Amino acid sequence: MKPITLIEVGPRDGLQNEASFIQSADKIHFIDLLSASGLQEIEVTSFVSEKAIPQLADNQIVLEGIKKNPNVIYTALVPNLIGMEKAGKASLKKIAIFTAASEQFNQRNIHCSIDESIERFKPVIAQAQRENISVRAYISCVLGCPYEGSIKPAQVVHVTEKLLALGVDEISYGDTIGVGTPKQTKALIRAIKPLLDTNAIALHFHDTYGQAIANIYTALEENITRFDASTAGLGGCPYAQGATGNVAMEDVLYLMHGLGLETGIDIYKIVEAGDFICKKLGKRNQSKVANALLANVGDCR
Amino acid sequence: MKPITLIEVGPRDGLQNEASFIQSADKIHFIDLLSASGLQEIEVTSFVSEKAIPQLADNQIVLEGIKKNPNVIYTALVPNLIGMEKAGKASLKKIAIFTAASEQFNQRNIHCSIDESIERFKPVIAQAQRENISVRAYISCVLGCPYEGSIKPAQVVHVTEKLLALGVDEISYGDTIGVGTPKQTKALIRAIKPLLDTNAIALHFHDTYGQAIANIYTALEENITRFDASTAGLGGCPYAQGATGNVAMEDVLYLMHGLGLETGIDIYKIVEAGDFICKKLGKRNQSKVANALLANVGDCR
Repeated sequence: MKPITLIEVGPRDGLQNEASFIQSADKIHFIDLLSASGLQEIEVTSFVSEKAIPQLADNQIVLEGIKKNPNVIYTALVPNLIGMEKAGKASLKKIAIFTAASEQFNQRNIHCSIDESIERFKPVIAQAQRENISVRAYISCVLGCPYEGSIKPAQVVHVTEKLLALGVDEISYGDTIGVGTPKQTKALIRAIKPLLDTNAIALHFHDTYGQAIANIYTALEENITRFDASTAGLGGCPYAQGATGNVAMEDVLYLMHGLGLETGIDIYKIVEAGDFICKKLGKRNQSKVANALLANVGDCR
Repeated sequence: MKPITLIEVGPRDGLQNEASFIQSADKIHFIDLLSASGLQEIEVTSFVSEKAIPQLADNQIVLEGIKKNPNVIYTALVPNLIGMEKAGKASLKKIAIFTAASEQFNQRNIHCSIDESIERFKPVIAQAQRENISVRAYISCVLGCPYEGSIKPAQVVHVTEKLLALGVDEISYGDTIGVGTPKQTKALIRAIKPLLDTNAIALHFHDTYGQAIANIYTALEENITRFDASTAGLGGCPYAQGATGNVAMEDVLYLMHGLGLETGIDIYKIVEAGDFICKKLGKRNQSKVANALLANVGDCR
């Protein structure tokens, strides 16, 4: 099996919904710790308007402040041409755009239809291509939607085709509310695999119903090798207070290493980064592995 | 695939390490809620000496107090002939004995070698057989030991053979410290399957490293159909404060139902039982599914 690539989304997807502002210096230190772990890709911030996401209003300060590791690809979420210009100025080599497989979710999340969102991304992607910037597209709600319920693979296939026609380089498929189980995950993978190269597929699981690690395991059986995760499981579920969000990077690493798969990432450095940011947030670490290791249960090198 | 049988171990394995005494009436109400959920088997208490486990010193009160559902098999842990006599008096149809795949764990947990523990169980099992009482044997630390580290399938095979020679009816294989990943789980299952009928195998996972649901999913792929779980994920890891213990029944049910497998269990009744006992304990519910459902994320019927 090919080596596994894990994409860290904690600094953006994990922190964006935190109510109290996290100091830019703390975000920078967190990202610097992650940069030193062996991670190959980190989504560090977002150029969404500061009205929409005040937590990430310091995007430029953060991008200028981090110690750039030449082995790490740093990305940021880009909603429009204004964001794209900022991404270019920050010398980013990769950006991310976002839509959903669910019409209702898209309407409520970014106030437009799926088709409108894709229209909106056309000039962004064209500009990225002119600047040789790679484009990742997120499709959220691929296994279920808080408004529409179950989502059929055909809906995801439809959005995938539209995004591929625009020339995106990678698609990250998100189970945004964490409702999927392995059977559904397998069906989705089998539906999208004929459309794009395995290297262009990333899966993005939330652990709201405790199924993320099993879903990732199924995906490995289907030869998927790219997964998003969030250190310390940062990020709640905005649709349900008290429920958990992104799958924890530490728990994904434990799975991969237990299966004998290469990630190039030092799990202890991830645990250290997660412990740092959780203390700053005053929040319980959501990673079971981190809690076990921090309590000195044992070694898992 | 055959229907799945889930064995509830929360009232015994989950509660036994709770520091403050839980009122017998609360234990009884908790078990009564579980009995009404569709569960087929519940381990309700233990006849281990009240010095060793003061929390379960009220074993007889609890066994007399619960509303016995004729569709439920009630079991209790039995360490010796004195316990066996009590189990017989309580009209139990099934008891459980326990040993480990790790010598060091056995020494520290029950202060004898694996062979000595098996010798000790001989008269208990003989007595059970005379009374037509079914015997479940627990083997703990089947994938790893806090003292010996990794455990080889051959060690588990060895203990399995000894237990089968005594005539036990079922063996529950426990990843007591939750260190296993699917590769190891699969190797263990393939090692033990030639020795006993699949119906006589139960797997008992702890979720300390967040791998339990993935391990159960692998086991399903290997045609295992019996799993232990604990409502609300009751039970910590006695080897690490802050780390989690038994896999949560709710999360296992969500997996099974998501895969279209029959359990006969109403997940909402389990969530209700878990919510009741967590409130009595003043503890956070360890089930991700319970937390999501209690926060009204959605429906998963």
